Amino acid sequence: MITSKSNAKVRNLIALKRKASERNAQDVFLVEGIKMFREIPAAQLREVYTSESFLKSEAGRKAVEAVLAAQDRLKETVVETVSDEIFRNLSDTQSPQGVMAVVSQQHYRLEDLFGQHTEPLLLILENLQDPGNLGTIIRTAEGAGVTGILMSRGTADLYNPKVTRSTMGSIFRVPFLYTDDLSGTIGKVKQAGVTVCAAHLQGRHTYDGEDYTKGTAFLIGNESRGLSDGISELADVRVRIPMAGKVESLNAAVAASILMYEAGRQRRAGRKDT
Amino acid sequence: MITSKSNAKVRNLIALKRKASERNAQDVFLVEGIKMFREIPAAQLREVYTSESFLKSEAGRKAVEAVLAAQDRLKETVVETVSDEIFRNLSDTQSPQGVMAVVSQQHYRLEDLFGQHTEPLLLILENLQDPGNLGTIIRTAEGAGVTGILMSRGTADLYNPKVTRSTMGSIFRVPFLYTDDLSGTIGKVKQAGVTVCAAHLQGRHTYDGEDYTKGTAFLIGNESRGLSDGISELADVRVRIPMAGKVESLNAAVAASILMYEAGRQRRAGRKDT
Repeated sequence: MITSKSNAKVRNLIALKRKASERNAQDVFLVEGIKMFREIPAAQLREVYTSESFLKSEAGRKAVEAVLAAQDRLKETVVETVSDEIFRNLSDTQSPQGVMAVVSQQHYRLEDLFGQHTEPLLLILENLQDPGNLGTIIRTAEGAGVTGILMSRGTADLYNPKVTRSTMGSIFRVPFLYTDDLSGTIGKVKQAGVTVCAAHLQGRHTYDGEDYTKGTAFLIGNESRGLSDGISELADVRVRIPMAGKVESLNAAVAASILMYEAGRQRRAGRKDT
Repeated sequence: MITSKSNAKVRNLIALKRKASERNAQDVFLVEGIKMFREIPAAQLREVYTSESFLKSEAGRKAVEAVLAAQDRLKETVVETVSDEIFRNLSDTQSPQGVMAVVSQQHYRLEDLFGQHTEPLLLILENLQDPGNLGTIIRTAEGAGVTGILMSRGTADLYNPKVTRSTMGSIFRVPFLYTDDLSGTIGKVKQAGVTVCAAHLQGRHTYDGEDYTKGTAFLIGNESRGLSDGISELADVRVRIPMAGKVESLNAAVAASILMYEAGRQRRAGRKDT
């Protein structure tokens, strides 16, 4: 059992928790909690850590073994145990469950974001900053049937433990891509026949007056600044979410969710008609 | 200028920040930041506090004066100044703007939640716990045209500074009511001719297949436990938000937002047709 903070593995886990640069250099990220642990694709699982008390509890030990057995990796995977005190340092949560894994990062190409059995439904995020918002958006995106998520490099890091956790596992299932050249990549999305819609306070069209049954991408901007003019101008259409009362804007995750589920609603309705 | 933590006013502000019981006993709550300060209805403003550096800045002083002048209260309102260090203790934020007010609580009756110029559109929250979710819901509710919000006593406190802040001012504009008897109050809502729809994972109907143009109330449950069976059974209809992929549930604020905006969409569409 590891009981020292200066243990090399513990020091590495702390670095992976804190620094995007370390996660990217090692091409991994951290996944915490038994629910998320169950979602890890077998090919991506690299290292498993549990707290002392988690492994002592029969339920905890069995849960980890069940996951590894289901993945046919029970024998080859070493489960390292760390003291509860050390685990609290590694954990990103107030009440850690006691299980954590180092997992390989995913690598998608732009084509992977277009889906295979449906018209593409993309989200394009420009410099979204709040980790909770980003995680909620990924989770809702999977639920709404979004085929992929494109993000500017300035968007929060999906591999930040707070974001990873708030995706509730959707991080393993929704293809995503960060780009240094958001304008150029949006150009490629448009070339692929996808209509780009900007959620914009000054949009001329109400969001539910547009047709999203064909290939569609929604542009969502930063929480306080919205979309930059340069990116906003690339949109084929600007849509506005009507707001009653004196509300000046909606939370970015809420706005994205309303748009994604409107697309989902239209696509379900379209299928019924045909 | 107040520079001591043991000053009676400072001690009271700390108590109001921390304890719902104090806020309720004194029938007030705290409002922080210049944007929220501008939203305070004149009749509710009781005390104003600024940090030393805020009042020294011309922009800060003018902003406060403009609000008080617009409310015709410039002369009678004493603006207390506290040292920056004390203000950081009073503030609920990491980077306090430097202005805070003590404001009278609002008191609505059930009838106030039904609106005046439209069919009622209510949200009913059972034991919603996350302050950020609650604030986001209130803000989105105003935008979607919700006429009022009914909450079980076990729901997070709207007057918690975190919630108040995340409403972005909607707390002053959306009528709301806490009830000790949620079942009984839902009964009164139904007697008023409002159809109660529960957002439920086992709902038989897809949410967008129902008609929300007449009086409608959406029931939203706790983040992890959902709606209790007892409350769920009171619903006239259970609606389900379809989820693609492996998503098991949506964030409570997202689910509420999708439902509220679907009602808004139908009501706008209905108005166009007539």
